[in-house]
Amino acid sequence: MDIAVLGTGSVGRTLAGKLSELGHVVVVGTRDPEATLARGESDAMGNPPYSVWQADHPAVRLAPFAEAAVSGELVVNATGGGGSLDALAQAGAENLAGKVLLDVSNPLDFSQGFPPSLFVKDTDSLAEQIQRAVPAARVVKSLNTVNCKLMVDPANVPGDHVVFVCGDDEQAKEQARGLLGELGWPAERVIDLGDIAGARAVEHYILLWIRLWRATGGPQFNITVATP
Amino acid sequence: MDIAVLGTGSVGRTLAGKLSELGHVVVVGTRDPEATLARGESDAMGNPPYSVWQADHPAVRLAPFAEAAVSGELVVNATGGGGSLDALAQAGAENLAGKVLLDVSNPLDFSQGFPPSLFVKDTDSLAEQIQRAVPAARVVKSLNTVNCKLMVDPANVPGDHVVFVCGDDEQAKEQARGLLGELGWPAERVIDLGDIAGARAVEHYILLWIRLWRATGGPQFNITVATP
Repeated sequence: MDIAVLGTGSVGRTLAGKLSELGHVVVVGTRDPEATLARGESDAMGNPPYSVWQADHPAVRLAPFAEAAVSGELVVNATGGGGSLDALAQAGAENLAGKVLLDVSNPLDFSQGFPPSLFVKDTDSLAEQIQRAVPAARVVKSLNTVNCKLMVDPANVPGDHVVFVCGDDEQAKEQARGLLGELGWPAERVIDLGDIAGARAVEHYILLWIRLWRATGGPQFNITVATP
Repeated sequence: MDIAVLGTGSVGRTLAGKLSELGHVVVVGTRDPEATLARGESDAMGNPPYSVWQADHPAVRLAPFAEAAVSGELVVNATGGGGSLDALAQAGAENLAGKVLLDVSNPLDFSQGFPPSLFVKDTDSLAEQIQRAVPAARVVKSLNTVNCKLMVDPANVPGDHVVFVCGDDEQAKEQARGLLGELGWPAERVIDLGDIAGARAVEHYILLWIRLWRATGGPQFNITVATP
């Protein structure tokens, strides 16, 4: 499938690399490809320059947001939450119309340092903001509850831990579940939380995720749901 | 131990009944004991009148909030979140000073119907509001992430599912963990999330809990944390 991955940070790279490895034709979207490739320093998170990653992934093309969006049958929003609406505006609503828009971002507000707070409150979510901004896209929220290494390699952590999907378009959720299956998340480990307002639940879960990161000593963990 | 349980709803009754069964001397606190006992109808949640429950639990005494608080070496806040600060004001800061105040409530706002939203946002929590209102109490947040039947009988759901504690007083957390152990939560299934601001995480988790209730078909479920 032709897939656009918006965002050149660790989440975007990890997803783009894995989807390319799985045989998809992946275009990564960024604001300004030349500027992205010109950066010679590691970023604030310690990720090496994009050009270094690019050299290891020659099959993955880098393009401006709009060109990436045009190329994708399915579009992944892997930009930082604070930049997502702007990135999607640059991608262009007309280039996203009718497409599954898999939103894996988190609405993190680092303006007061670490730990971040959220820039949405409990009666809204970034995924809903995205759906409102691009009404013709079929937004599915998923994968934002796990570290990006776990997104593409759930076996990094043993057990039947789970991820979630939510969205207003049932068929879009099915398509997203198909892609999740390719990434290693079988259907029984993908919990459907209902409509796109379910994104409030998984985005606010990040507050617990951050505390669990501290408590467990690292970002490689996930939750399972135990039932009788 | 002498334990005060504030609140006469299903959470208060369930905890009071179990703690009494475990041998503790339990006093349940309410605004007006006569009014509580005079009610002849089931409440909005379908709980039978308190007098019916009282008849089955003769060892549990009902008293005004302040009298209950005075009696307890440890105090449990099991009031509805919306009424917690008022109940604790009635209990009296002087009667709570120096005591472990185990807060199991949730900051649910039902003013717009179901599902509820939260009346605290991500940079605050009800537990922190309680700690600020009663600075001399040693507030520990716990158990709010599970249904009350599961609070007192974790074996209702198989597996090593977990609960959380957080609070600013390490010794108070240890005492709370002791009580959790008596309820069936061994130390390795009680995750310490750090200071009282960790309550933001577990209170906002309720948004996910509500969606999981729908997804799993009932309130008897819980999460486990899978690590490598």
